[in-house]
Amino acid sequence: MKIGFLGPKGTFTEMAARGLFETGDFIPFRTIPSCMDAVATEEVQVAVVPVENAIEGSVNMTLDYLIHKQRLPIIGGITVPIEQHLLVNPDYQGEKIDKIVSHPHAIAQCHEFLQAYYPNAEWEYMNSTGAAAEYVKNHPDLAIAAIANETAAQEYQLKMAHTNIHDFENNGTSFVVLSKESVGVSYKGSAYTEDKTTLMVTLPSDYSGALHQVLSAFAWRKLNLTKIESRPTKTGLGNYFFIIDVEGAMDDVLIPGVVSEIEALGCGVDILGSYPCYTMARNKANV
Amino acid sequence: MKIGFLGPKGTFTEMAARGLFETGDFIPFRTIPSCMDAVATEEVQVAVVPVENAIEGSVNMTLDYLIHKQRLPIIGGITVPIEQHLLVNPDYQGEKIDKIVSHPHAIAQCHEFLQAYYPNAEWEYMNSTGAAAEYVKNHPDLAIAAIANETAAQEYQLKMAHTNIHDFENNGTSFVVLSKESVGVSYKGSAYTEDKTTLMVTLPSDYSGALHQVLSAFAWRKLNLTKIESRPTKTGLGNYFFIIDVEGAMDDVLIPGVVSEIEALGCGVDILGSYPCYTMARNKANV
Repeated sequence: MKIGFLGPKGTFTEMAARGLFETGDFIPFRTIPSCMDAVATEEVQVAVVPVENAIEGSVNMTLDYLIHKQRLPIIGGITVPIEQHLLVNPDYQGEKIDKIVSHPHAIAQCHEFLQAYYPNAEWEYMNSTGAAAEYVKNHPDLAIAAIANETAAQEYQLKMAHTNIHDFENNGTSFVVLSKESVGVSYKGSAYTEDKTTLMVTLPSDYSGALHQVLSAFAWRKLNLTKIESRPTKTGLGNYFFIIDVEGAMDDVLIPGVVSEIEALGCGVDILGSYPCYTMARNKANV
Repeated sequence: MKIGFLGPKGTFTEMAARGLFETGDFIPFRTIPSCMDAVATEEVQVAVVPVENAIEGSVNMTLDYLIHKQRLPIIGGITVPIEQHLLVNPDYQGEKIDKIVSHPHAIAQCHEFLQAYYPNAEWEYMNSTGAAAEYVKNHPDLAIAAIANETAAQEYQLKMAHTNIHDFENNGTSFVVLSKESVGVSYKGSAYTEDKTTLMVTLPSDYSGALHQVLSAFAWRKLNLTKIESRPTKTGLGNYFFIIDVEGAMDDVLIPGVVSEIEALGCGVDILGSYPCYTMARNKANV
């Protein structure tokens, strides 16, 4: 199976893709839209893209392109803990680091560590944590280090000089798997956590309490929401819409009941996917 | 007044800062945390950082750092339309562009334009749209173009070869102004749109319908919500919290009423700010 992911190699998105799929051709794409387009043109069978709290790539980019440009079903999800490490060349023995390279978000996420350990090191921004690791690999003569993940350390045979240097202990990034159909896609079973259904709800107009009415349809059925996010519409269909994640798979009674009730209120409802979710174990890199 | 913003020069954040303040020292910072820290240490009086749908910098970074690390009041907001242009050196006369440079998100946002006009041009990623414009300025010998905004065009004296090349017409980025106090901060009055109050609500536990109960407190008072977003907590205080934007300024009756009612449900409530919001006019760059 051909698996597209937001590249380059050694990013958190590659980590997510390899966490979900045992085997396959893992193909990096330069942007989220090009990765999703490759599913539409059948260049790849599935695409793995970040959807929440991403280091590389933007949540909004994924949701906007999915909703407005390339409507592909969500067929799976995975949460990857954000664990950043300080990577150096394996033969590097010194203590002094002149320069730290990484994606701007990754550098910002290790703000406290850098202030405490390397207050005088210069920073240089790279396009991704993977690109930073590659840069360190290609410059063994320099006293530099990259902030990147374990996959990047393996990919570029770098040594982890410090592990888990990120400021927030429980930070994670969520990724979704997009595909034309879920048939023939199988995941590693070990890290399965729950089934989830994602809905997009468009409100008829921006009036007080509209969202409250919509949530009533979930609340009295005791359907638990794990995420709700409002986004401005870009198409003139309404003022804003909501992305709502519901615990549980699509069924014959409860979720169809919610959908007809919300539609009766004058809202638009689209089911973006009903799919299994996985969680990657934390602290893999405590070496 | 010293105004810190997420740099470098020529970014959308600088555009937001200059849209809000008539005069002042505009000081670029390398990361969102360092920009916010500079307010705490009084190096600058206010910080302007992106909070939603940003090109450079991440929404989550701003909210997370604000909530968990550096709790500064929000004292103002501005929405800037995302208008991307293709910038070339002023003496460039050719038709052929070998390479397009910009931030990965900006390149992704102009996906359709690039496919239609420059399908064969190479892309090179830069740390920001501002950095891309600077790169074009410094390489007048190359057949290259940057995707960036009007501020960057002015900053680096570049020519707009194509204007408004972004795929989505109504895309915008929201920024907030953070400061220890709002006294002595005055905005340009022209683009004022509304007052807004931002609340952070922590739910006691992840049970069905908890959010529905919280929203009831707003709904029966006919308080209109303009944004709601769920975020995972990182501190172990609860499973998740919500950032809620309410139309209208803090008053003596309605919002305090909401707060006591939500607290009676066992939730935690923090008021992150009550502040005037501004909107920058669209299509300034239709030249």
